[in-house]
Amino acid sequence: MNSYTVHTSRFHVRYSETDQMGIVYHANYLPWFEVGRTDFLRGAGVTYRQLEEQGFLLPVTDATLSYKQPARYDDEIEVRTRIGELTPVRLTFAYEIVRAYDEELLVTGETKHVFTSKSLKPVRLSRSLPELYAWLEAAYGKG
Amino acid sequence: MNSYTVHTSRFHVRYSETDQMGIVYHANYLPWFEVGRTDFLRGAGVTYRQLEEQGFLLPVTDATLSYKQPARYDDEIEVRTRIGELTPVRLTFAYEIVRAYDEELLVTGETKHVFTSKSLKPVRLSRSLPELYAWLEAAYGKG
Amino acid sequence: MNSYTVHTSRFHVRYSETDQMGIVYHANYLPWFEVGRTDFLRGAGVTYRQLEEQGFLLPVTDATLSYKQPARYDDEIEVRTRIGELTPVRLTFAYEIVRAYDEELLVTGETKHVFTSKSLKPVRLSRSLPELYAWLEAAYGKG
Amino acid sequence: MNSYTVHTSRFHVRYSETDQMGIVYHANYLPWFEVGRTDFLRGAGVTYRQLEEQGFLLPVTDATLSYKQPARYDDEIEVRTRIGELTPVRLTFAYEIVRAYDEELLVTGETKHVFTSKSLKPVRLSRSLPELYAWLEAAYGKG
Repeated sequence: MNSYTVHTSRFHVRYSETDQMGIVYHANYLPWFEVGRTDFLRGAGVTYRQLEEQGFLLPVTDATLSYKQPARYDDEIEVRTRIGELTPVRLTFAYEIVRAYDEELLVTGETKHVFTSKSLKPVRLSRSLPELYAWLEAAYGKG
Repeated sequence: MNSYTVHTSRFHVRYSETDQMGIVYHANYLPWFEVGRTDFLRGAGVTYRQLEEQGFLLPVTDATLSYKQPARYDDEIEVRTRIGELTPVRLTFAYEIVRAYDEELLVTGETKHVFTSKSLKPVRLSRSLPELYAWLEAAYGKG
Repeated sequence: MNSYTVHTSRFHVRYSETDQMGIVYHANYLPWFEVGRTDFLRGAGVTYRQLEEQGFLLPVTDATLSYKQPARYDDEIEVRTRIGELTPVRLTFAYEIVRAYDEELLVTGETKHVFTSKSLKPVRLSRSLPELYAWLEAAYGKG
Repeated sequence: MNSYTVHTSRFHVRYSETDQMGIVYHANYLPWFEVGRTDFLRGAGVTYRQLEEQGFLLPVTDATLSYKQPARYDDEIEVRTRIGELTPVRLTFAYEIVRAYDEELLVTGETKHVFTSKSLKPVRLSRSLPELYAWLEAAYGKG
């Protein structure tokens, strides 16, 4: 039996993230997913910023969001991020957004990514960055 | 054979909508979807703003996005909006985002909604607002 | 007596631009200013996008905003943009944001800019792009 | 000689906050200012969220920003917030935004606010919420 890595990020909802319904505007969960995967990758000992500086990008090809309960201004939020799928050319992150104080599940979702060069051409991560790829495999529970 | 209504909204990509990849940040297509459905509903002779003033909300319960090609700063964009599904309590909008000058398809997606009161309790639109519901049915191609 | 150029941009307030106060979030007027200056420059026969492609940037060094009345969701907005100051190395835009239907003044402000290269080094516009500089002088009412 | 309170907030720059210049989009410092003042007020033992729930708002009437150096993706940021001016009906916050690792000053600015009721009518804070007002006076260095 393998275990997989879940990374938890925490922050408060900003006023700028609310809308006139009095709740967080539905688009604003996607930047929170991105905070989640940035923090997740930090665990690999290489930041996403460094990956970009080395000439790699991780553009989003698909996103799905399911809204259960609204987040509200100043709520403390937990983003729980894990790898949902991994191949040498593609990577899916899965997310749970939870209100910290009562662990109420607010939003679930996924983002699918391809590994590309700076000019958005696909690259094979297992060949270009074998150490990062091995770390991702381990985090996915296949290590 | 029934026909259905497609509404087209047009605008230019704003600088604020780009990210350091040099393309539109992936979350920013959701506000464009919302521009699309606001304009779509305007065709019903009642604005979404008026619906809210009458005590109705249309919160998003699910969203999916599929990114084909990136939009770039100052591109003229077309959002093509239609109804993807309609029941007395739920409504799905389907969107195509297209670059205007060459009709290249950039992003497709859907947003699912429920009709609710101001306190986010579900309401049956066919009963609460029968005229709007009839208009939506016609626009969906079932009229 | 010289005249100066005022460019007017028009659009509707997006739902995503509101906050839980029920009005437009105060930061969101800065992207509207940027829509105003993008449209203003279009009159020069060269888009800001083309300027960037030629290696020039126009970063903001200072911004001021004065909020008179709030804009609300779906209001039609007019951004009136003119040049507030021009030197060979600096450019200030001045803006008025007005509600279209009753011309109520909502927000006034300014953004100060420097002309720079892609690496953010200052450049002298009158030397690097003399035709654009001449157009700006004319638009400023000094032509 | 009186001392005044400075509150420091810390977070990382999000990818969504960058633009195609490769730096943080200039409007995105205003939500950071708002994070700063939210955290500042937390020190008073009453959150801004609670103030709103009690029927008070603190809308922005003026904002100024001066951009010294750009913030970049994933930089750790410090927002240093203090009171710049205080009267029974008005409150000014002053901010310094600093890159954490080398304390480089990136942006300075101010936001001016009025105390209002939910319907945006001005209120006299010293009368409506005397305890909060006394706390603000002390934080301003006049206590």
